[in-house]
Amino acid sequence: MRVVVPFDGRDPKTRLAPVLDTDERRNFARAMLADVASTIESVGFEPTILATTDIDCEWPIVVDERSLDAAVNDQLAAADGPIAVVMADLALVTPDALDRLFEADGNVVLAPGRGGGTNAIVARHPDFRVDYHEASITDHRAVARDIGAGVTEVDSFRLANDVDEPDDLAEVLLHGECQAAAWLRGRGFELTIDEGRVSVQR
Amino acid sequence: MRVVVPFDGRDPKTRLAPVLDTDERRNFARAMLADVASTIESVGFEPTILATTDIDCEWPIVVDERSLDAAVNDQLAAADGPIAVVMADLALVTPDALDRLFEADGNVVLAPGRGGGTNAIVARHPDFRVDYHEASITDHRAVARDIGAGVTEVDSFRLANDVDEPDDLAEVLLHGECQAAAWLRGRGFELTIDEGRVSVQR
Repeated sequence: MRVVVPFDGRDPKTRLAPVLDTDERRNFARAMLADVASTIESVGFEPTILATTDIDCEWPIVVDERSLDAAVNDQLAAADGPIAVVMADLALVTPDALDRLFEADGNVVLAPGRGGGTNAIVARHPDFRVDYHEASITDHRAVARDIGAGVTEVDSFRLANDVDEPDDLAEVLLHGECQAAAWLRGRGFELTIDEGRVSVQR
Repeated sequence: MRVVVPFDGRDPKTRLAPVLDTDERRNFARAMLADVASTIESVGFEPTILATTDIDCEWPIVVDERSLDAAVNDQLAAADGPIAVVMADLALVTPDALDRLFEADGNVVLAPGRGGGTNAIVARHPDFRVDYHEASITDHRAVARDIGAGVTEVDSFRLANDVDEPDDLAEVLLHGECQAAAWLRGRGFELTIDEGRVSVQR
């Protein structure tokens, strides 16, 4: 199975700007990408990085400067068999979580993200296409229904936690086991608890 | 296995006050409790409701007016075999998620919640005790380590989503399949999307 990891190599993780400067956001995004790609390798697949710009990395890269939807849908259209799309900012990813994703039955397998997102997909139906805008999980359920494909949803906390905002960093510190968590700790981030709510400070 | 569901029958879900009045919060909390308790039944266990005050419900009740920690720890100390503690506000709960929790190996099985919480526990070690304050998942890992109990963590998005704040209601509308989701829809709640973020309005 082909496994594609979309990655914004230009200006990643803009919503982390309140806590990380531009270079730091780029480095942290690369640490998360490395975690995701190496975990994909650890369960027996070779990741292809679908990047908005050419980046220096150890995995095969396809550069596509267009929007996320356009780039991913080209990959889906060109696939001659099952294809997976795994987001690059899943800093809590584990081999077990990816095994459950890749081994789930279904013509369309969806891993929901918090806030209505779709953080990972396995498409075994040639007509499945993505639409990542807004509450994409409901759109993807509808797309699958419209093409007559059965949907399986993978119930994973680790796949549901993409990292977009400062509070998301708390989940990385609480549960992350790889480079992204180590990167944050190395830059002085630590958990804080304020009136029962967990966040981070530096 | 004994399965205990702690429930605040007096003034539940105070952080939902911006969107639900006192009676509504009580009714919504009861709808979530019914979802959790009936899902526990559906996978072959009888739930015991561990309530802060006597409530009228179809499941066996133990009333304990003390703090959550004190009440749950009394249940753990009195257990003469494996015991599970499942939070009453897991409105996305499914039979599959509970099967994975109850069938997981380990002397201590933990289902993490968002923000460092611990939303469900199976204790098969007589000395395990809870401490739900602050980032309880790290405390519970430490408690298990201190008593020499192996820990298994259940990776479930559905068990990770407890419902405390207005934005949590969006997850219920996106993924809930039972009474709590129907209750919200019946009161006119619907998803909204503002600058890519999903929330709810009424």
